[in-house]
Amino acid sequence: MEINGVEIEDTFAEGFPIKVARVLITAVTEHWALVAAREATGFGTSVIGCSAEAGIESIVGGDETPDGRPGVNIQICNMGYKNLESSLLYRLGQCVLTAPTAAAFSGMSQAEKQFDTGKKLGFFGDGYQKQEEMFGRKVWKIPLMSGDFIIEENFGAVDGIAGGNFLILAQNQAAGLMAAEAAVNAIGRVKGCITPFPGGVVASGSKVGSRYKFLKASTNTAFCTSLREDGVCTLSEDISAVFEIVINGVDKEAISASMRAGINAACRVPGVLKISAANYEGKLGSHQFPLHVVLK
Amino acid sequence: MEINGVEIEDTFAEGFPIKVARVLITAVTEHWALVAAREATGFGTSVIGCSAEAGIESIVGGDETPDGRPGVNIQICNMGYKNLESSLLYRLGQCVLTAPTAAAFSGMSQAEKQFDTGKKLGFFGDGYQKQEEMFGRKVWKIPLMSGDFIIEENFGAVDGIAGGNFLILAQNQAAGLMAAEAAVNAIGRVKGCITPFPGGVVASGSKVGSRYKFLKASTNTAFCTSLREDGVCTLSEDISAVFEIVINGVDKEAISASMRAGINAACRVPGVLKISAANYEGKLGSHQFPLHVVLK
Amino acid sequence: MEINGVEIEDTFAEGFPIKVARVLITAVTEHWALVAAREATGFGTSVIGCSAEAGIESIVGGDETPDGRPGVNIQICNMGYKNLESSLLYRLGQCVLTAPTAAAFSGMSQAEKQFDTGKKLGFFGDGYQKQEEMFGRKVWKIPLMSGDFIIEENFGAVDGIAGGNFLILAQNQAAGLMAAEAAVNAIGRVKGCITPFPGGVVASGSKVGSRYKFLKASTNTAFCTSLREDGVCTLSEDISAVFEIVINGVDKEAISASMRAGINAACRVPGVLKISAANYEGKLGSHQFPLHVVLK
Amino acid sequence: MEINGVEIEDTFAEGFPIKVARVLITAVTEHWALVAAREATGFGTSVIGCSAEAGIESIVGGDETPDGRPGVNIQICNMGYKNLESSLLYRLGQCVLTAPTAAAFSGMSQAEKQFDTGKKLGFFGDGYQKQEEMFGRKVWKIPLMSGDFIIEENFGAVDGIAGGNFLILAQNQAAGLMAAEAAVNAIGRVKGCITPFPGGVVASGSKVGSRYKFLKASTNTAFCTSLREDGVCTLSEDISAVFEIVINGVDKEAISASMRAGINAACRVPGVLKISAANYEGKLGSHQFPLHVVLK
Repeated sequence: MEINGVEIEDTFAEGFPIKVARVLITAVTEHWALVAAREATGFGTSVIGCSAEAGIESIVGGDETPDGRPGVNIQICNMGYKNLESSLLYRLGQCVLTAPTAAAFSGMSQAEKQFDTGKKLGFFGDGYQKQEEMFGRKVWKIPLMSGDFIIEENFGAVDGIAGGNFLILAQNQAAGLMAAEAAVNAIGRVKGCITPFPGGVVASGSKVGSRYKFLKASTNTAFCTSLREDGVCTLSEDISAVFEIVINGVDKEAISASMRAGINAACRVPGVLKISAANYEGKLGSHQFPLHVVLK
Repeated sequence: MEINGVEIEDTFAEGFPIKVARVLITAVTEHWALVAAREATGFGTSVIGCSAEAGIESIVGGDETPDGRPGVNIQICNMGYKNLESSLLYRLGQCVLTAPTAAAFSGMSQAEKQFDTGKKLGFFGDGYQKQEEMFGRKVWKIPLMSGDFIIEENFGAVDGIAGGNFLILAQNQAAGLMAAEAAVNAIGRVKGCITPFPGGVVASGSKVGSRYKFLKASTNTAFCTSLREDGVCTLSEDISAVFEIVINGVDKEAISASMRAGINAACRVPGVLKISAANYEGKLGSHQFPLHVVLK
Repeated sequence: MEINGVEIEDTFAEGFPIKVARVLITAVTEHWALVAAREATGFGTSVIGCSAEAGIESIVGGDETPDGRPGVNIQICNMGYKNLESSLLYRLGQCVLTAPTAAAFSGMSQAEKQFDTGKKLGFFGDGYQKQEEMFGRKVWKIPLMSGDFIIEENFGAVDGIAGGNFLILAQNQAAGLMAAEAAVNAIGRVKGCITPFPGGVVASGSKVGSRYKFLKASTNTAFCTSLREDGVCTLSEDISAVFEIVINGVDKEAISASMRAGINAACRVPGVLKISAANYEGKLGSHQFPLHVVLK
Repeated sequence: MEINGVEIEDTFAEGFPIKVARVLITAVTEHWALVAAREATGFGTSVIGCSAEAGIESIVGGDETPDGRPGVNIQICNMGYKNLESSLLYRLGQCVLTAPTAAAFSGMSQAEKQFDTGKKLGFFGDGYQKQEEMFGRKVWKIPLMSGDFIIEENFGAVDGIAGGNFLILAQNQAAGLMAAEAAVNAIGRVKGCITPFPGGVVASGSKVGSRYKFLKASTNTAFCTSLREDGVCTLSEDISAVFEIVINGVDKEAISASMRAGINAACRVPGVLKISAANYEGKLGSHQFPLHVVLK
């Protein structure tokens, strides 16, 4: 299989179940909504070492937000609902409540699982917080020095998927990175998913396990081109850099659509030689996304 | 005291001791250095609920970096060196090692306190990591799919100060926020300090303590203008919004210079009515920055 | 009439006919498409003193571009088709052909009026340019040092409208500007229109004519709050700054939709006291957009 | 000669004399100063088809601006002082006077050549403009709807140099473009110069003359890798893309320092194979910048 002359390997991406909450942050301008969203989703690449996986899903206009102001949808993901509740509490409390002119609404009002994060954060109001009905939603109004902070009482979450992915094998680092950026641009327009790594790109694709007992993941040696002389790298000679795009999303469809959009975009960048995907013989997770199926 | 017609209250900012590490992140372009820096400093506003306080200190050219590439200095701050070491390990491991083309160098080579974070992250190389001398520094070279990750072996840290601050009292929210942004612009040009909150601005200035046992900080009710009718707000009628700028830095001089630059900038924005500062009768910390002294 | 407590004056915006061409610029990444688009639309606020009026209409994904790469739709506007053809030739030749990885496609293939700008720019190929069929379009392939430049042969243009507008009357400059930015954010999501002034905002609303023979437009003295003591300013005392949003678009519907979206957004910003519009007793143009009709 | 393993060809860049004015734009925040600066320097790549060459020279803090607000230094360049005066009048009048909260100061107060652009633009005030002394400068205060526009009366200009340049020969387009971006980052930190092309990069390096009488410049065929089969391309087989960086500046030292900084930066990007420069046997201009001299 080829796209634009680039070979698509017949392999699959291996993902794993994760819990996903969507939060809609609004602010006086798109700029300030983004400021809050970036802070709230930072230090959120992988649950291996971050307290959550997080990213920006989409930017929306006032016609798609409860308060008619510009908004940014973010996703916060964690292993298990208990951890996720904690992540919501800390990330919204420390990064959105503190952000100039920001408000926070649930992006999953219909979800079965609901957390009363807004109510809990209300205690910051020191007794002056008030529950109200605004924009057809049950919210808490917390007095702040810069104005009232409006936060929805309940935030919904669903069973989602982490670790959707594909690999960009390139002639050199720059071509791989340009293609990765183009892929992230494309995925940014797909609903329901995020690319939680820095700039949406993983420079350090990993394998499950390592030679050290204390380390559960280590560099994907078979794809490290600087290990050619060590006889460890299995890549062909023309490839000198590999970037991975990791995708989290609300369901299989969102992940598949993102992979499709991202791979198609990457294959349009000169210097991209091959597309592959990362899988771990089921050691990582139960979700499989075969490239040739996803791209049909 | 007045600056540009704006009254400077005769009060002081109250800060507290914190441990500060500076990390210099370099990358192929300034853009990609910033991408890594933003991820590594995200979810890092306050140690009350974040695993660290963190922010961007400065952007530097290749003439100021070991590898001649564009760079971004970040600060990571935490209570106690043990917590700080953990923050370095997780934030560099999850957000810089994973970032496209990034490298990480110590920004405090001369500090007494040193952590071997680079050596520890080296284990990700699964035995293929190598210690080398590069650019006159002892570094670890960790093979990645996208190229080798270069990280200095040791990262230094010093006794710094958190909680340097001032308050911008404004005619309305927009004037306060514009002034806050102008202040953050100005502080961004001062060496040795960061403004860890979203966009550098605190929308939710707090007081120490609350009426709830489980909550150590709550909204600064005396400065909440929506609590006027409750008789709690002590601000004059012409003020309708207050923003706080919180500054962390390597020493008293950096904090003072930042406050001076920031206040001067804020006072140039129409609609700013008064500058004050937050203090807590010593309950928060031992460092005092009297506005009238700092501004001399 | 009121929106969110803000009075909407019962007046109308006065626009005038202009010729509009839409150009779709694609590039390897969204960033580089935006770089080309910004250069091509710069120095393009008003035909009073610029060689064209120009701006960014929308950012689109690879699924909406002929070559599957990220794209940016820009509009270039001028008085008369002859001037517009010249603007296309110079702006595309100097700012898009020269831009890294850029390609240029017509965004108005169905328009009656067509210019063979692509063919003319082909001469830059010094005889090596080639006409081809690509992506179902007739294009010219011009060899460049950095790769081939692909440009569609023909670019369409239509009779559009310039000077759609509204005025934001605010308590102070910052509130007015925040509201203007929010309005521009909202208009940026409406199809078919641009806001050609810096950041989409006009700081210097004008009236037709002046006391000087050589000057066809001058400051709108009746709205200049610093002329209160001169008895010229007709604004009420509570207003201290007025910003204008000027909108160009392909037709009445695009302008109306933009005004509606922009005004609604502006009225959500605290400190905005009134919305009005600029008109000139028909001296400027034949198109009228009554606020109360547009906002229905 | 080699830098970081990249061959530096023993050739020279050929520049030509141009007149250069520096304008310091200030605004309420750095963001709004940049908005004005970008509009004022847009459509300003080459005097071949633009009304001026223009670009951003540097961003400065309030400690380096007359009014204590954030500022951006731009350069506007043209052939002859008469054209330059016209460019100043139109670009400042249409793009800075119209920009929210902007003010404009001369960045060359000491230059022999001075234009009274501020006085001329004052007529927009329709008789209400006032000459004043502010910040130790003679300025005009022009009443605007959004507040007074402050512009210095006189703007200085000097004999500068255009066309300083170097060529980045790369393994593929992405590597060349990454290196170009890194070079532009580095040049952005050098005082006295601008890179007027889109994003600072020229995708379409040209030669003087063409086979068409009406065309004074055409694609640099000898460097077009897609013309290999035509026997026109003189580049070695390993090179597949060439980007040019064009630099304008106030004097030879600024151009030389920029070339040095830019080339050093470009040579740090993997996939860059050679650095060269563009010259035209003196047909373009009298200034020569030999790479091996500049890089000493």
